[in-house]
Amino acid sequence: MNQELIKEIAKRTESKIVFLVIDGLGGVAHPDTGKTELETAEIPNLDRLARESLCGLSIPVGLGITPGSGPAHLALFGYDPVKHKIGRGVLEASGIGVNLQKNDLACRANFATYDYKSNLVLDRRAGRIPTEKCIELCSLLQNKIKKLDHTEIYFYPGKGHRFVIVFRGDELSEEINQNDPEKDKLPPKVVQALNPEAEKTAKLVNRFLSTAQEIIKNFNPANYILLRGFARYPNLPSMQEKYQLNPAAIATYPMYRGIARLLGMEILSTGEKLEDEIKTLEQNFAEYDFFYLHIKETDLYGEDGNFTGKVKKLEEIDSFIPRIETLSPQVLVITGDHSTPAVLKGHSWHPVPFLLWSKDTPKNEVKRFTEKECRLGSLGLFPAKEIISLALAYAGKLSKFGA
Amino acid sequence: MNQELIKEIAKRTESKIVFLVIDGLGGVAHPDTGKTELETAEIPNLDRLARESLCGLSIPVGLGITPGSGPAHLALFGYDPVKHKIGRGVLEASGIGVNLQKNDLACRANFATYDYKSNLVLDRRAGRIPTEKCIELCSLLQNKIKKLDHTEIYFYPGKGHRFVIVFRGDELSEEINQNDPEKDKLPPKVVQALNPEAEKTAKLVNRFLSTAQEIIKNFNPANYILLRGFARYPNLPSMQEKYQLNPAAIATYPMYRGIARLLGMEILSTGEKLEDEIKTLEQNFAEYDFFYLHIKETDLYGEDGNFTGKVKKLEEIDSFIPRIETLSPQVLVITGDHSTPAVLKGHSWHPVPFLLWSKDTPKNEVKRFTEKECRLGSLGLFPAKEIISLALAYAGKLSKFGA
Repeated sequence: MNQELIKEIAKRTESKIVFLVIDGLGGVAHPDTGKTELETAEIPNLDRLARESLCGLSIPVGLGITPGSGPAHLALFGYDPVKHKIGRGVLEASGIGVNLQKNDLACRANFATYDYKSNLVLDRRAGRIPTEKCIELCSLLQNKIKKLDHTEIYFYPGKGHRFVIVFRGDELSEEINQNDPEKDKLPPKVVQALNPEAEKTAKLVNRFLSTAQEIIKNFNPANYILLRGFARYPNLPSMQEKYQLNPAAIATYPMYRGIARLLGMEILSTGEKLEDEIKTLEQNFAEYDFFYLHIKETDLYGEDGNFTGKVKKLEEIDSFIPRIETLSPQVLVITGDHSTPAVLKGHSWHPVPFLLWSKDTPKNEVKRFTEKECRLGSLGLFPAKEIISLALAYAGKLSKFGA
Repeated sequence: MNQELIKEIAKRTESKIVFLVIDGLGGVAHPDTGKTELETAEIPNLDRLARESLCGLSIPVGLGITPGSGPAHLALFGYDPVKHKIGRGVLEASGIGVNLQKNDLACRANFATYDYKSNLVLDRRAGRIPTEKCIELCSLLQNKIKKLDHTEIYFYPGKGHRFVIVFRGDELSEEINQNDPEKDKLPPKVVQALNPEAEKTAKLVNRFLSTAQEIIKNFNPANYILLRGFARYPNLPSMQEKYQLNPAAIATYPMYRGIARLLGMEILSTGEKLEDEIKTLEQNFAEYDFFYLHIKETDLYGEDGNFTGKVKKLEEIDSFIPRIETLSPQVLVITGDHSTPAVLKGHSWHPVPFLLWSKDTPKNEVKRFTEKECRLGSLGLFPAKEIISLALAYAGKLSKFGA
C-alpha cells in the first residue's frame, strides 16, 4: 500500500490493535506424517479464531524470497522491506538499547581468540567469555579509545563475547567488508572499501582495529576483535508519524526490541517467559493503542529442526490466547514474520498463516489455523506489507480517501 | 498494470466493451440474516452471467482503504488512483459540463445565508433556493465580476444553492483552505494559504469573496458565498491516448459525467432513470467502442442504510441485463466502483464483486454474483486497476508484448 496515502488518511482513535507475532510461524509438512507444525499442534483457540477472522497467507517480501528478521518485521508493520533496509549492526545496537543517531555507523563485534603468529582466528567467541568479562573489556577499551580523528567511538557490551561498536562521525559508509572470517581456524579478513566513497571509513576502521588490538593483544582468551554487519542508521518514519499510533512493543529478544525502537515503539520491560509477556500486555493495555507482542521460541525450534518443540510451543501459545481476548482489543492480528519450517532448519520463503480478528470480520470457510486452511481465507495469498492498512481499517483508524 | 505498456500494445478494433458500474455494489452481511445485499437479491441474470464469466473481487485502491468516488473510478478505468488525484471542485465543474483548461482552479460554491452582524453562517444552503434563482445570481455575479487582476473568473450554476467557480489564471494553487465551516451557526473560515506558493491565490480568493459578497449582501436568503474543494485541473491522459478507445459515458449524476469527461469520454445525454440509460446505450451503440454506464442509486441506498432499497435496486438492474446482452458487446464488465454496505451506511474498503463476460471467458465454479462466490472466481482478490487490461484483452484490443 502506498505509504503517503496511509499517512494522509490515518487518524487517532481509542481503539486498540494487538499484533501477536509468532516468529517463524509457518512450516512445511513433516515427511513422516504429512502434517506441518500447525497441523500437528492442538490449538483449539487459534482454530476457533481462524473461523471468525479474516484469514490468508502473507508473503513477507516476495514469492521465493526468504527474509531475515529485519525485512520480515518491516513488512509486518507496513514498511516496504526492499526500500527500507536495516543492517544487522543497527538491529543489534538498537536491541541492546543504544540510542543511535543519524550519522552513526554500527557493527556487531565479537571478542575472539587469535594467534598473532599464525594469523589464524582460533576461537571466534573467545571461549564464550562471561558477560561480566565483556563489560570489563568494553569499559577498558572505551576508556582508552574515545575518538579517532573526528569520529567518536562507543562500545556497548552484549551477552557473553558479543558487543556492539558505534562509530559516530561524518560521511561514514557501511560499504566496507567485515574482518570476521565466520569460521574458526581461518585468518581474519582485511577490512576494505567496497566503493570509493567508503575508502575513508575502511581506513578508519582498520586504524581502530589496530589500536584496539594493541590494547588487548596480551589478554587471554579475548585478545582480538572481529567485526561484522556494518550498518548506517536507517532513516525510518515512525509509526506515530505514519499511522497516528501510540505503539508499544513486548519482546524478550534484543533484536526485536531493536526493530520496534527504530519504528518509534515504546519498549515495555518484560520477563523472559511468554506468561511474562502476556502480563506485560495486560498491565500496559490502557496506555497504548498498538501492541507488538513477539514470541521467539517457535523460530528457535524451527532453526534447530525441533519439530516437536515447535509444536509444543504453538500449543503453549494457544493456551494464552483467551487472556489476550479478555482484553477485548478491537483488532487482533496473529501471524508470523516469516516461516521457519523445522524440516528445513531455517527461515524459508513460504507464506505465513495470518488471521485478523475483529467483531466485524465475517465468519468464513477456514476451519483451522494452518497453512492450507488460511490459503482458503478471503485474503488468499497477499503481501505482508498490506496487513497494517487492514488492521487500521478494522480498528476504524482510516478516513475515506478522496472525494 | 504498467500504463506505458498498455499504451504501447493497445490497438483500435471494431469490438465493443460495456462497463456497467453499479455504484457501491459490494455489501456486508445483514446481522439478522447473515446475507449481503447481493446474497439477498433475486438476480437470476447476474447469477447466470457470473457462471459464464471471469469473476473476482476487485480492490479499488488497497486493502483497508475506503475510496471516494474519484479514486475508485480512476482505478476502474486503469488510472493509478494514488498517483492521479482529482479534486472535488474539478469533479463538480466537469460534471456540470465546464470545459476546464490546464491552468484552471475550480471550487464548489454554495449560496448561503449569513448574519453580517454576528459573523455566523445561518444556513449553508440559503434555504435551498431554487435552481432558477441560482442561475439568476450566477448571471448577476458573472456580469459584475469577469476578472480580478489577471485572473478570469467564471460562474456556473448547479442544482439549487450549488454552483461552481472557476479561476483561470497563471500560477493558481489549490493549497488554500475553504471558507465553508461545514456546519450552520458557525463563523465562516478565513481562506489562507497552506504553503508560501499559495499566498497569491489566497489573497486573490479573499479579494474575490469580498467583491462578490458586496454585490449580494443585501439579498435574502442568498447573501453570502461559501467555497470548498479547491482543485487544479489534473493532467490526465485520455482513454483515446492510453487505450486507442473511442469511449462514451452514460451517467445520471454530474460527478460521474465529470470523471468521464476528464478521461476523454464523450458524455451522452440521457434521462434520469435506469431505463433511460439503457435506451441511450442502445441508441448510441454503433457509434463508440467503449461504454461506461453508471448506476448511482445502489450507493445512495447503501449510504442511507436502506438494505431493502439496495436489494430492490439490484433486482431492477438485473432485469435490464438481457437488454444489454442483446446488443452483443464483445466484453461486458459488471462491477462497482467500491462497496457501500447498507449495514455500514457509507463507502467501505471491502473488495467489490466483479464479472467480465465475453464469449471466450471460461465457465467456472462461481454459482452466483455475490461477494463470497466472486472471491472463488479465477481472479480471486485483485486490484481494480488491472480490470482495463483484461477488458481490452478479451475484446481483442491488445497486441502481443515483445517479440
